[in-house]
Amino acid sequence: MSLIVQKFGGSSVADAESIKRVAKRIVETRQAGHDVVVVVSAMGDSTDNLIDLATNVSPVPPARELDMLLTAGERISMAVLAMAIANLGLEAQSFTGSQAGVITDESFGRARIIDVTPGRIRSALDAGNVAIVAGFQGVSQDTKNITTLGRGGSDTTAVALAASLDADVCEIYTDVDGVFTADPRIEPTASKIDKISYSEMLEMAACGAKVLMLRCVEYARRYNVPVHVRSSFSPHQGTWVTDGPIPDAFQSQAATTTTEGADVEQAIISGVAHDRSEAKITIVGVPDVPGKAAEIFSTVADKEIDIDMIVQNISIAATGRTDISFTLSKSEGRRAVEALEALKPRSGFSSLEYDDQIGKLSVIGAGMRSHPGVTAALFEALSGAGVNIEMISTSEIRISVITRSDSLDDAVRAAHRAFGLEGTDGEAVVYAGSGR
Amino acid sequence: MSLIVQKFGGSSVADAESIKRVAKRIVETRQAGHDVVVVVSAMGDSTDNLIDLATNVSPVPPARELDMLLTAGERISMAVLAMAIANLGLEAQSFTGSQAGVITDESFGRARIIDVTPGRIRSALDAGNVAIVAGFQGVSQDTKNITTLGRGGSDTTAVALAASLDADVCEIYTDVDGVFTADPRIEPTASKIDKISYSEMLEMAACGAKVLMLRCVEYARRYNVPVHVRSSFSPHQGTWVTDGPIPDAFQSQAATTTTEGADVEQAIISGVAHDRSEAKITIVGVPDVPGKAAEIFSTVADKEIDIDMIVQNISIAATGRTDISFTLSKSEGRRAVEALEALKPRSGFSSLEYDDQIGKLSVIGAGMRSHPGVTAALFEALSGAGVNIEMISTSEIRISVITRSDSLDDAVRAAHRAFGLEGTDGEAVVYAGSGR
Repeated sequence: MSLIVQKFGGSSVADAESIKRVAKRIVETRQAGHDVVVVVSAMGDSTDNLIDLATNVSPVPPARELDMLLTAGERISMAVLAMAIANLGLEAQSFTGSQAGVITDESFGRARIIDVTPGRIRSALDAGNVAIVAGFQGVSQDTKNITTLGRGGSDTTAVALAASLDADVCEIYTDVDGVFTADPRIEPTASKIDKISYSEMLEMAACGAKVLMLRCVEYARRYNVPVHVRSSFSPHQGTWVTDGPIPDAFQSQAATTTTEGADVEQAIISGVAHDRSEAKITIVGVPDVPGKAAEIFSTVADKEIDIDMIVQNISIAATGRTDISFTLSKSEGRRAVEALEALKPRSGFSSLEYDDQIGKLSVIGAGMRSHPGVTAALFEALSGAGVNIEMISTSEIRISVITRSDSLDDAVRAAHRAFGLEGTDGEAVVYAGSGR
Repeated sequence: MSLIVQKFGGSSVADAESIKRVAKRIVETRQAGHDVVVVVSAMGDSTDNLIDLATNVSPVPPARELDMLLTAGERISMAVLAMAIANLGLEAQSFTGSQAGVITDESFGRARIIDVTPGRIRSALDAGNVAIVAGFQGVSQDTKNITTLGRGGSDTTAVALAASLDADVCEIYTDVDGVFTADPRIEPTASKIDKISYSEMLEMAACGAKVLMLRCVEYARRYNVPVHVRSSFSPHQGTWVTDGPIPDAFQSQAATTTTEGADVEQAIISGVAHDRSEAKITIVGVPDVPGKAAEIFSTVADKEIDIDMIVQNISIAATGRTDISFTLSKSEGRRAVEALEALKPRSGFSSLEYDDQIGKLSVIGAGMRSHPGVTAALFEALSGAGVNIEMISTSEIRISVITRSDSLDDAVRAAHRAFGLEGTDGEAVVYAGSGR
């Protein structure tokens, strides 16, 4: 008998019918002899509706009260899910984040989990019950205020509970079949990845693969929790995120549904990710004297804006000036430009350019460590597809390039083919899932 | 400076605009120098919507989960109200029943308050904040499960908090101007009662006056909490429920808005209440031997059905049989009839009659203790109005009679006039409130 944590997102519990389907799936897992802890998000658009209500009475709602308000969403979905399970004949009990022992700091709206003390969850399991836990929420350590974990919070709740309960696996149910070698809406031959390491998954998540949030993968790696990303619409195996083997209890199940020989020869590249959420700021004519770059980046950092890639051109000797480009989230673009415009008179640069028509392509794979030709092969493929490279950034297991936004799809296809990632099992690949 | 507990029901916080209006009222009270604790119900129909959702996944939802679900309603309204207050420039913090220290037994759906430990509320007040508390909910003493208090629960929360905080007054805001001498929709000359004792208010509530629930008045009497029932749509004084005088701090305010001389001559009768929620069951041909009546009423009691009035006819010597009639809530009618039908073969009575076309008229007043003519005056008035009396029940301060349902309005008017309760101040009487 295993202990399984199952997480269902808002789209999986969007209405009464969806909740009944999820309940059936949970009951099947329990009846197969496993202990089950379920983490659930708020139903469908309910969080957005609550935010609308809040902004109707207050343009900038106090953070403590906004968290109090938003946690009503999971309270509703978890109680209704527990009812649906009970209606199928099993005992189920729902628990708020606070009741489940999810202890956080007090950064309302983006709280971080400090500790998990799942005594009541353990008791519910010992009594033979299914435990349903509200995702996305916790309680602050000192003041006992209700907090929310911010984006991707329910995934993080699931992984944190799995770690604290020493669960055999944390299953993240989603509306896609798993993590793919590329977005199949762009590259139809993209195939599901059967297993991927934490580091590679981290790079995929950081580079635009939306199926798992970065924080959740970081947490899983730190506590070595095997994560299984899978579809809530099919019984097939999805993608295992782990540095070890797929746990024994799930091996036979895996063997029947995964591509044969997937582990026989490790591919150099695991997958191709893309991201259209970034913009590029170029600061033109920066005086090439010490401290000018530091001044620019501290100005941005002071606004708590994260930057991604940075390029500084070689200084043109005749002018004594240089250009600096960096990328950042489009949502932060306006604030960054305002801060830099304010700096301009003091810094003495010539002008600012803001470009939100860029795309970012990343190829990720632990295998590239031992294959020096990967960069060359990527550049050759992109060149062959007529894609111009504007910026480059690399890590041990990733190469990212910035292209024009309208060249990004071509870049994804070219890279995917260059590294032989095409699916070989002839199965139809479904990315967007059925039903929604 | 006084400590005021203000309770706003679901219709007062039905949408964003209503919430803003309530927030303004709270801010005015705070700015007048008072400490304010607010108890709030769920917004408008939201509780009904949650119940609909529950019954969509489970015909008989588990009670623990139903309470978990329903408490989401006040969580939403209290957080949004706190935001609206903050938007007007005051600090406000919302607290769940559990956080506010509302400790209950574990009777899900109809929990009773065992204790109130309002440490966090006191701290919020000491910090100069307005404290908003979720009505209708608490946490069970032993298992720390979330509970709801059942019908009228938010009023009870307010009075219980007022008692534990030793508040100067518990203000119950509603969509009517206070407690009236009769329902003004039936008797246009009905007038607002300025002050009423706990006992009289208990009888009024028990006899169909819907403005305050019985439990809340019982709690107020036990802890001697002055309750002020007033309109959320007007600044005028409503009805004070207390055995003492109106507290000094509110006297001047009262004097300017209440009818002059209201306390000079205590009326014999405080008011007339009516109730169409009851039905009558008559058991015909009960063998007139010892134990038969006990058998019948234990059968009903075993189903936990409350009965109200009972009449047993004089036995007809020739047959050795008698008829027994009693009244009960219409909502329990079917269950009572089923239980009695099952008893019939064993008990040997002839037949059952179920009558849901009855009405109950009650006249209430502590003054009737010293005025023996009240019953005679009532019967004369009803007779003059052509109203037939089917059953009678009396207490020290109340007379109730059962009439045909379609005679009840005539009975209300006749009784109201017989005891001189017509308003004398010439003001237009508003019962149903403006706006809704």
